[in-house]
Amino acid sequence: MAKERVVLAYSGGLDTSVAIGWIGERTGAEVITVAVDVGQGGEDLETIRQRALDCGAVEAYIADARDEFASEYCMPALKAGALYMDAYPLISAISRPVIVKHLVAAARQFGASTVAHGCTGKGNDQVRFENGITQLGPDLACLSPVRDLALTREFAIDYANKHNLPIETTHHNPFSIDQNVWGRAIETGYLEDLWNAPTKDVYTYTDDPTYPPLPDEVIITFEGGIPVKIDGEAVTPLQAIEQLNKRAGKQGIGRIDVVEDRYVGIKSREIYEAPGAMALLTAHKELENVTMDREQARFKRTVADRWADIVYEGQWFSPLKRSLDAYIEDTQRYVSGDIRMVMHGGRATVTGRRSEASLYDFNLATYDAGDSFDQSHAKGFIELTGLPAKLAAARDVTFGRGVAIPPARLN
Amino acid sequence: MAKERVVLAYSGGLDTSVAIGWIGERTGAEVITVAVDVGQGGEDLETIRQRALDCGAVEAYIADARDEFASEYCMPALKAGALYMDAYPLISAISRPVIVKHLVAAARQFGASTVAHGCTGKGNDQVRFENGITQLGPDLACLSPVRDLALTREFAIDYANKHNLPIETTHHNPFSIDQNVWGRAIETGYLEDLWNAPTKDVYTYTDDPTYPPLPDEVIITFEGGIPVKIDGEAVTPLQAIEQLNKRAGKQGIGRIDVVEDRYVGIKSREIYEAPGAMALLTAHKELENVTMDREQARFKRTVADRWADIVYEGQWFSPLKRSLDAYIEDTQRYVSGDIRMVMHGGRATVTGRRSEASLYDFNLATYDAGDSFDQSHAKGFIELTGLPAKLAAARDVTFGRGVAIPPARLN
Amino acid sequence: MAKERVVLAYSGGLDTSVAIGWIGERTGAEVITVAVDVGQGGEDLETIRQRALDCGAVEAYIADARDEFASEYCMPALKAGALYMDAYPLISAISRPVIVKHLVAAARQFGASTVAHGCTGKGNDQVRFENGITQLGPDLACLSPVRDLALTREFAIDYANKHNLPIETTHHNPFSIDQNVWGRAIETGYLEDLWNAPTKDVYTYTDDPTYPPLPDEVIITFEGGIPVKIDGEAVTPLQAIEQLNKRAGKQGIGRIDVVEDRYVGIKSREIYEAPGAMALLTAHKELENVTMDREQARFKRTVADRWADIVYEGQWFSPLKRSLDAYIEDTQRYVSGDIRMVMHGGRATVTGRRSEASLYDFNLATYDAGDSFDQSHAKGFIELTGLPAKLAAARDVTFGRGVAIPPARLN
Amino acid sequence: MAKERVVLAYSGGLDTSVAIGWIGERTGAEVITVAVDVGQGGEDLETIRQRALDCGAVEAYIADARDEFASEYCMPALKAGALYMDAYPLISAISRPVIVKHLVAAARQFGASTVAHGCTGKGNDQVRFENGITQLGPDLACLSPVRDLALTREFAIDYANKHNLPIETTHHNPFSIDQNVWGRAIETGYLEDLWNAPTKDVYTYTDDPTYPPLPDEVIITFEGGIPVKIDGEAVTPLQAIEQLNKRAGKQGIGRIDVVEDRYVGIKSREIYEAPGAMALLTAHKELENVTMDREQARFKRTVADRWADIVYEGQWFSPLKRSLDAYIEDTQRYVSGDIRMVMHGGRATVTGRRSEASLYDFNLATYDAGDSFDQSHAKGFIELTGLPAKLAAARDVTFGRGVAIPPARLN
Repeated sequence: MAKERVVLAYSGGLDTSVAIGWIGERTGAEVITVAVDVGQGGEDLETIRQRALDCGAVEAYIADARDEFASEYCMPALKAGALYMDAYPLISAISRPVIVKHLVAAARQFGASTVAHGCTGKGNDQVRFENGITQLGPDLACLSPVRDLALTREFAIDYANKHNLPIETTHHNPFSIDQNVWGRAIETGYLEDLWNAPTKDVYTYTDDPTYPPLPDEVIITFEGGIPVKIDGEAVTPLQAIEQLNKRAGKQGIGRIDVVEDRYVGIKSREIYEAPGAMALLTAHKELENVTMDREQARFKRTVADRWADIVYEGQWFSPLKRSLDAYIEDTQRYVSGDIRMVMHGGRATVTGRRSEASLYDFNLATYDAGDSFDQSHAKGFIELTGLPAKLAAARDVTFGRGVAIPPARLN
Repeated sequence: MAKERVVLAYSGGLDTSVAIGWIGERTGAEVITVAVDVGQGGEDLETIRQRALDCGAVEAYIADARDEFASEYCMPALKAGALYMDAYPLISAISRPVIVKHLVAAARQFGASTVAHGCTGKGNDQVRFENGITQLGPDLACLSPVRDLALTREFAIDYANKHNLPIETTHHNPFSIDQNVWGRAIETGYLEDLWNAPTKDVYTYTDDPTYPPLPDEVIITFEGGIPVKIDGEAVTPLQAIEQLNKRAGKQGIGRIDVVEDRYVGIKSREIYEAPGAMALLTAHKELENVTMDREQARFKRTVADRWADIVYEGQWFSPLKRSLDAYIEDTQRYVSGDIRMVMHGGRATVTGRRSEASLYDFNLATYDAGDSFDQSHAKGFIELTGLPAKLAAARDVTFGRGVAIPPARLN
Repeated sequence: MAKERVVLAYSGGLDTSVAIGWIGERTGAEVITVAVDVGQGGEDLETIRQRALDCGAVEAYIADARDEFASEYCMPALKAGALYMDAYPLISAISRPVIVKHLVAAARQFGASTVAHGCTGKGNDQVRFENGITQLGPDLACLSPVRDLALTREFAIDYANKHNLPIETTHHNPFSIDQNVWGRAIETGYLEDLWNAPTKDVYTYTDDPTYPPLPDEVIITFEGGIPVKIDGEAVTPLQAIEQLNKRAGKQGIGRIDVVEDRYVGIKSREIYEAPGAMALLTAHKELENVTMDREQARFKRTVADRWADIVYEGQWFSPLKRSLDAYIEDTQRYVSGDIRMVMHGGRATVTGRRSEASLYDFNLATYDAGDSFDQSHAKGFIELTGLPAKLAAARDVTFGRGVAIPPARLN
Repeated sequence: MAKERVVLAYSGGLDTSVAIGWIGERTGAEVITVAVDVGQGGEDLETIRQRALDCGAVEAYIADARDEFASEYCMPALKAGALYMDAYPLISAISRPVIVKHLVAAARQFGASTVAHGCTGKGNDQVRFENGITQLGPDLACLSPVRDLALTREFAIDYANKHNLPIETTHHNPFSIDQNVWGRAIETGYLEDLWNAPTKDVYTYTDDPTYPPLPDEVIITFEGGIPVKIDGEAVTPLQAIEQLNKRAGKQGIGRIDVVEDRYVGIKSREIYEAPGAMALLTAHKELENVTMDREQARFKRTVADRWADIVYEGQWFSPLKRSLDAYIEDTQRYVSGDIRMVMHGGRATVTGRRSEASLYDFNLATYDAGDSFDQSHAKGFIELTGLPAKLAAARDVTFGRGVAIPPARLN
């Protein structure tokens, strides 16, 4: 009889390398590794693939998902304008679903019934992996070797040494890092004291904004909410993010240091850097201000808050996410035009916007003589929009509960 | 028989100086002027008072409302964390109600039945004045000489010259400005072209962030959402704003350039500078992240959005505003503690937070060995929070509508 | 030179019959009438058309829009589940847009630059007509003869008599009524006293529920949120509403008596009857309960509230309405199945539901032995969903602000 | 050394009677029972108390919490107007917190460190008990003998027989019931088939509405959102509910049959009857329509939805619940006056309302000549409220995306 098979999300690092063998020992299953490039840099996929095989994987699947990630995950986040707690651009939260998609594809390809990941039992990512897996493959089982099979760091080092695994075990990295083209997330021991400021070595996507180079002016052209040109040159979504990661990164844009509510019920200190993402979000928002109807935009804030919350909580492939996307997509049809932005010293400042789809009407807005706004409409507008509160105020007076008006101090 | 009396919101400038006589001519009423100091700087109140009398006012009321404005209008905006369209800290919007209160107090004191203001018929401020007036004095009538009595700029200059009014008429100021201790709002002709960047002369509260002085570290202590100490020195709300206006202003913090949806239905380009307000809002937000319950904070974003919208629209004294304040006030009881912030080059960056009321629990959050978080709870949590979407996914599969999983690309 | 032309929404009644001539006299324009059948019953369209011509219209356009109204206006309202103030199924509010569409079509066909309607200046319908007109024809002007040309009832009677118009002028109808296939709205003088109960003569779509016939059981089959069969017989949307108007009407279902907030800022007393609409809304809601994901349904309540508000306020063709519809439409893909309902004595009671797309899982829900729900997951679920409030409670205890626990009363 | 002590929520029934001994056997702890009267009827407290002692409890605490429950739990639900999924008046959900309060009081009194309840692991009540307990006593542990100690029904019967417990074990009740003064919840096997209609024996609080007695007219007087008189006679909250339970119950009012989303992630079929609660909620809602400001009421719907969700989910003592209550409480200050209602055949129909705090203004609303509403204000109101959508429509036309206007069909 064929052995059970487990697909494992594989980073090439110590923990998941050890997990290959450990899952085999504990469950008797064959392990297939899956490594996905979402722009995290580091080792090339072929090296990672070889290491997986050397560590005992029966198959090692790799995929370059950078364009897919940029187009199908980062762009929806941009169109949503989603920031969890008004701060976090969902860096890891949107990368988990694309990785999950490849995990499930591999599970189908190789006949696996279980999908494993390297997350601990106290973070958000376990939820995102496991919810994603059940949303794409409701028949698949989930496994977390760290949480469910007691795969601690210390155990992993011992195991790797004992089995002579081709992986570095001596270096103690104080940082816990997740990164992709949309940004980088850093957790580390001394930042668990909320009073400590981040040190310089925390950052790699951004230079120190305290000592920036000369200001960098950029013009980003959007079509339907998506960046299509930078300074007049056509770009793919991936190229847009990469180019702005470099240029905004040099200016120290997109550093975030925030105490965040994790889905598992606790608060944690998080450091992020997302230069390209934050530059794009800033430009996109202002283009929406110019091109989107007021009421559509107001309700979109409610939609975006909910979108951010559920994507943070691992509901990327859920029914609600899909319906919220339908709202958002409909709002983007006119989010087209140019945003000029100066990037300097940590600031991305919009200085100009132009769009054929603009709802700004100079002739209505100008204070010049000869404007087309008929001021006589204002009186009736104020009377009727103010009528409900006026009636309530009259009632307050009747009941002696009006706002107290202190006697005028005579001078 | 006694003459009718009109109370006029008086700035000391050309338009409202001319309005004193013009209202008298057109309506036959006596005019009482009211000038309120909300931290706008400029001429002293006594000078303004004398000018009003010289221009024909029968009474000239002045009030120093700076502490009142800071405590009763700016602090609620801070506690709400309110930014209209996620951008505008409601500078003019919150000053209108305090001015209105003094206008109504004067109307009661001097027996006036009408309150007049100098706003045009195409902006938000006319709505804020008139709604405020009817919410505090539902029996009072409103009058806008500019809108209702055809008081144009050109007419005002002619009138002032003809009647020899003691007011400057030659200088043509290209800027339309409103300022108070919470910030400064600027509109001007060439910025009505959205592609034009603001020039340096637009700003006075803030220095250019491109060439900042050395970084400035500040510690702000809050009690119940209100700043009570700066760098350990006790401050009143007014002092907190004023000190931070200076320190954050030197660093170029709080410049805002945004296309905004006016309540009267059009989009307009607005420039603001609010160094103290933006510094305080940044610090307050992060202290909320540390001390406020997740669900309370999430719903507060919905409340704050609505608060910002209705305050922008002149509903300060409305029933809804009062009820939203009840929600907000209840959330602030534990927003106490210290925020350390570095201000530099346009950035106000929180680098540390400490609070006896913190909900952050090091022992739960730490990735160190010996943490108190029981990871075994995660499995059941994920299973049940993920169950609805899993059932929906299984249905998708049944109906052949599951998320398409592309075949794994084998390498 | 050709005369200006005005398109007039024409009911065939006194006011709009007089308006034909009166608009001509006052504006010099030619008048084209438009009469649209949305299921209001009464005179046939050809009779109405002839009267318009007899009263001086240069063209008289008629349209049977019953199917269009049912399919494109009532069905979206059903899918939204929209009730203004949780009560009013938007009877007139959704008929105005379809009438407006025909008005604008006629204006284009006959080269008119203005569209006129017979509404007064204190109700909602003027807003719905005029907003609809500018949303479909932003270049068109709007005219309300009643509001703008002083066309009072008394004037109309005199005018009709003087000009010998072929229209009844003697009968004084105490009711102001608007009706269509989705329901009927009634206002009348004695109901303006909120303490008065409606009398029997108010109602025509519904019989008195106090003395109902025998209970009537119906099975309604939905596909994608739309009724497609009644008791197994295929129906169009129009037929579904009409059949249920009859059957539910006999049982006195769908009477509504409510104090409502009008868009123009005042409260008014409204009586409605909407037997078919309320029966369909009841059935549709319960089918959603069975087939819709929890979180999708929760957010849909927020969407539906906003949808109801803006449709009430005349924003049918607005950007926000279109985007909300995108959300709603996405939620309806699985709202398919049968609802069995007993209609009797004013009650439409769902007694059974079955759907191949049901998310109800007997094996998970049953309390029988042998269920598939793993109760061991509950512990972790409760621990982590309860953790934030537990931490907040512990803080309350620390600060001496815990919920007071009275000493147990010993018995 | 003293033994550990466990407080057990005790109903007097088989499961919790067996739990007394079973907890002792399995944990070695002494058991103190707590029985709380929330209006569930059935045996008197003294009988229950004696049975607990006979079954081995070391202490048996009883409390008549009917007034407390009505005033502090039912009245907030009434003021909130809370219906979970627009249907369920939170019958069990609001009774759990009051029971928990007595459990915690007993735990403090008798020095217990654990609180136990009789709920299973697949329902909502376990969450409500355990969250309530940790919110009032964050140091207390929770125990569910059914879920955690494998206390099945079959085991309980065997155990009771073996130990000769003074409790009925032979009768097999097919219903799972929870009831209190606010209503009654019923689950039972054959209703787990969603196509089955409830049979008559399901109901005890309500008579069959199909054959009602004569109509019953009632006048309910509210003060600040609370019923204070019925037909002119002063009542306490408890009396109001009890009286209306009887009168509305006779008319078959308040039967609810709904598929509901349980917090633990599954859908279930629920039958409720809540005659008094639904009658009060209906009357209260209409009084709000008359006395509450439009915008305050709109936002209250958002607040009430959230309130219902979190109370359903066991967050009664959470920070968010308290803040939402602050909003709600502020809205109730004017919800005072009389509602006249006819109760008959399942319907509670409001027929009259009167209030000194009414915001309805006859002179503004009336269509009689001589009304005080100035219709000339409507034009400007429509122009400016319609302006944003008009500008968007003009853009649609420019881009060839306007709403398609079919050619007028000429007749």
